[in-house]
Parts: sequence; C-alpha cells; structure tokens
Amino acid sequence: MSKKILLSGVKPTGRPHVGNYFGAMKQFVELQSQYESYIFIADLHALTTVQNRQELEENTTGVLLDYMAIGLDPKSVTIYKQSDVPQVAELAWIFNCLTTVPYLERAHAYKDAVANKKEPNVGLFDYPMLMAADILIQDADVVPVGQDQKQHVEIARDTAEKFDRIFQKCFKLPEPLILDTVATVPGTDGRKMSKSYNNTIPLFASDEEIEKAVMGIVTDSGADVPENVYAIHALLRDRVSLDALYAENKGQYKKLKELLIEDLKAMITPMRERRQALEEDKSAVLEVLKAGGLVAHERAEKKMEEVRKAVGLKLY
Amino acid sequence: MSKKILLSGVKPTGRPHVGNYFGAMKQFVELQSQYESYIFIADLHALTTVQNRQELEENTTGVLLDYMAIGLDPKSVTIYKQSDVPQVAELAWIFNCLTTVPYLERAHAYKDAVANKKEPNVGLFDYPMLMAADILIQDADVVPVGQDQKQHVEIARDTAEKFDRIFQKCFKLPEPLILDTVATVPGTDGRKMSKSYNNTIPLFASDEEIEKAVMGIVTDSGADVPENVYAIHALLRDRVSLDALYAENKGQYKKLKELLIEDLKAMITPMRERRQALEEDKSAVLEVLKAGGLVAHERAEKKMEEVRKAVGLKLY
Repeated sequence: MSKKILLSGVKPTGRPHVGNYFGAMKQFVELQSQYESYIFIADLHALTTVQNRQELEENTTGVLLDYMAIGLDPKSVTIYKQSDVPQVAELAWIFNCLTTVPYLERAHAYKDAVANKKEPNVGLFDYPMLMAADILIQDADVVPVGQDQKQHVEIARDTAEKFDRIFQKCFKLPEPLILDTVATVPGTDGRKMSKSYNNTIPLFASDEEIEKAVMGIVTDSGADVPENVYAIHALLRDRVSLDALYAENKGQYKKLKELLIEDLKAMITPMRERRQALEEDKSAVLEVLKAGGLVAHERAEKKMEEVRKAVGLKLY
Repeated sequence: MSKKILLSGVKPTGRPHVGNYFGAMKQFVELQSQYESYIFIADLHALTTVQNRQELEENTTGVLLDYMAIGLDPKSVTIYKQSDVPQVAELAWIFNCLTTVPYLERAHAYKDAVANKKEPNVGLFDYPMLMAADILIQDADVVPVGQDQKQHVEIARDTAEKFDRIFQKCFKLPEPLILDTVATVPGTDGRKMSKSYNNTIPLFASDEEIEKAVMGIVTDSGADVPENVYAIHALLRDRVSLDALYAENKGQYKKLKELLIEDLKAMITPMRERRQALEEDKSAVLEVLKAGGLVAHERAEKKMEEVRKAVGLKLY
C-alpha cells in the first residue's frame, strides 16, 4: 500500500532556536519516513512580511540548510520552494472567486493582524487561499500543524468542498495532524523561548554561544534544583537520568549548568557541523531544492489541468 | 520608431448588442493599426461571476468570434485569453503583498459591489491587483478605458510605482486612453441600451430580430421626428444625410423605421455572416487564440523572470 501524503510549509525567517527545533522542526524529521512527504519553503508567503531581495534569498537558503542539517533527507522528502510551483497563485485566484470577503475576515491570523496593525496587506488577508492551494494542489492527506494553525486546514477543506460542489470533484480532503505540544519550550528566563523575549538558545549555536546562553539562565531561587536550567535540560534527557543527575548535584547551580552545556553541545555540534559542510557546497544544496521544485511543479500542473478543465478555462 | 503598446481586456459575457459595439468594441478595431495591440479575454476575471464550465467556455469562444467578426485582425493584434498567461496570478499575489486592505476597499468597483450585495467574493475585492498584473506584465503603454474605469489604470500605476520603489525598476507606467463617450447608445425605449432594460438590438441579429427590435421602438410622441428612432439611426449615418432623410419622411414613423432597418441590416449582415463563417471553422479560430496565448505567455514570462529576481524568489 502506498504511503499517505504529508505536506507542510515552513516560512523562511531568520536563525532558528532550540524552541523551534523541539516545537516543530524535529517532528518533521521524525515524520518523514512514515509518509510520502512534501516540505516547501513558503517564499511567496514570506513576501507578506519580507520585502527585500537579499533578505528573502538568504532566509530561503538558510531554512533549507537548517532542515537538511537537522536530518531532512531529500531521498525521502521532496523539498521545494513555493515559488517553484507558481500554479498555487493561479489556484488561489480561482479559490478567491469562490470565497466571500467576510469568510476570510473571520480567519484567526487575519484578525490578529488587524488587531496588531492598522493596515494589514492584502497578502496577509488572502493568505489562507494560497495555503489552501498549496495543500490541495499536492493532494495532501495530512498537514502537520500546531493546535493554533488548525483553522488553515479547515479552510482548505471548506474550499475543496466548495469547489467540488460547484464544479466537479477534483480535490482530496486533507486532515490536520496535530503536532505534539512540546510546543512551549522554555527560554533562559523561564518564559516561552522566543526571539521577542530575547531568551533563546540558537539551534546552530557555537560552543561560545551555548556557554553564554546557559550561563545566562536566570536562577535566582534558593531551591535545590534550578528550575529554568532543569526545564531546558528536560528536552535533552529522559526523566529518570535527568532526575538522577539533579539529585547527584543538588544545589550546585554552576555544575548543573555545565552539565546542560555538555548535553547541548552533544546535540548541537553534529548538526552545526553538518550545516557548515552543507553551506560550503551551497550549489549542491540548491540543486536539491531545484530538483524538488521540478517534482512538485509537475504534480501541481497535473492537478491544475483537471482544475482548469473543470472550471471552463481549458479550450484546447 | 516602434509603435506604442496597447492592452485591453474584454470580459466574456453573453451576446453583445449594438450599444456594446458603438460604446467600445468598434473602437478597439479602429485602434488596432495605430498600436502594437494586445486584447485578452478575461476568463480568470469572469470566474468572479460565472461559475459554470459550459457557460464560461461558450462565453470565451463567443467573445472571440464576436471580435474577429467585427474586424479584429490577428495579424495586427495579439488576441489571447487571460488564463493562458497564468503568470498574472503570480504577479497579482506579489502585488497583494504590497497593497493594504483599506486601499482595495476604496476601489470604486468593490464599493459598488458591497453596496449591491452583502457578501462580495474575494476575487471581486482582489480584482484590481489581477488587472494591474495584466497591464504591467505586458509592458502596456496605453489602456483604453471608459471614463468610469480610469481608476483601474491608476491602481496599476500606483502599484508599479510602489513595486519599483521597494525593489527595483521593473515596470512601465501605463496611461489610460479614454474612449470616446458615444458610450451611452440609446436603446429601443430611449434609455441607455442595456440588457437589464431589455431594450437592446443584438449586434449579430438576424434580419427578423432587427425588424422586430426596430418595429418595437417606442414612438408615442406626436412629433415630426420619432426621437428614439432618430437617436439609434444617428449611430449609422452622418448628421447631414440623416437629417435629409428625416426631413423627406417627416412624420412617417413606419417608413423611417424601415429605413433604419435597412441601414442596420447593411451594417449587421456582413458582420453576422463573417461570424457564422468563423463559427463553422471554430478550431481555426481557437488556433488564433492559442497562438496569441503563446506570444503573451512568452512576454509575461520574460517580465516575471525580472520580477522574481528583483523580489528574491529566484535562487537558480
């Protein structure tokens, strides 16, 4: 029996941190063998916020290196960038014509954007249609999402059902695959690890960066176990070995931080080195992206031929 | 010196009438030799209102036959359908990201739509971006529009300027070419000729249809000159010969209607026959559309390569 199709988009933003890794990235790697996987870098989506050529190019290449470094394997996953499948914009346009303005105004992400800035751009508003196109054009069965992104998949399902009802059956209905909510990885100050709190440990940190970040973990409690150190450490070890370690070194904050540094280095160093090696042969890495793009493009074109025919755009 | 580029889109709707002909269609034919002309059938745009495969296919083929029958010459004009240049959807997406929601909310056509129905679709809302893409992707110098559509060209100019400022110079600024406002062709009841008033004379009417329409012209005045007959007749003859005719046949409503029928037949018959001949060889006509699509597609792709590079989507 053939594997189910998994599709996921990742937004090319800046440098990822340990929180991003445990919250989502790692799970993509773990899922890749169970599914026929398609992971795309959402560069068209990124244009809603990044409007600078160099920045977008660097972010796109960066996220590609990140994912390959953590173990995404081009042999089992088709990695491509969204803009190599421009048919998604064409399909999004068709979906636009089936969708009312009030429907999109009710989307969570847009409502948040409106709450935060006075004049959101149309890309932000229309983005659920592009995402529906991304998902449906590849016949995805499952889309891994955080609990807060479930609505995107629901919108894709709604849109597929609407299209199929108005024209003819063209789409598979995708299911959300809710990711484990290790999601709230604690940062160096105990709050959720997040760039905006300035409490992150970079995923591909150098030894010095790891040391600096861990030594900076806030520990002004008088307890036996430095809470914030323990919370981060819990990501790297199973409970039993972790508790043994903290019992052995009760109250010795500096020692415990050194042990965390050691464990972080053990996890990060091979990934960082792999990323460096990949970066040295960037053209080979871009070849992977290009090859993935060709595969995804061909699949999308096949689906679009069906769609164009169904709606009446295909006369020859 | 090479000719300036003219671009215009026509929406594939139903059967055209004499009002459409004198209001706009005829002027496209007259302009075709002065410019390097691109006329596209806006099938992607039509999806905002037509959501039926057969209807869209028939309308698209119909409008193609209409324009070729009235004298649009594929040797001097590139005729294509919008969906053969799917790059416009890709470019519209990029423009979406540079455009605020309130900006599009202020567009006339959308404001009218909101006033008329409670839940306009997103295609209607986003349509000015697709139209901007249609215009800018072909490097149009001029866009013939009615006075009421001037805003579309202004939005395209705005958007081009915004893009060029944020990224780098990619676009030519188009100028509106305001069409002669013979626009308000009177119908058989004296009001503007319009399908919604049920007062039209079909452009490719049969002899019987012409007779019936003209005999139905409302003439319940007691004047020497039947006003509504005269008004339509004025489209077909110059003032001097028209006034001579009406002086000669003062008060003879039936006779004057017969003379109008004669003149309408003289204008319509050759066009109708040309349309019938074209319809009999529909595959040859579709070949024209297909060939035009290839030309427009190639031009668009060249422009998009520039655009993709400028925004940071092109990594190889």
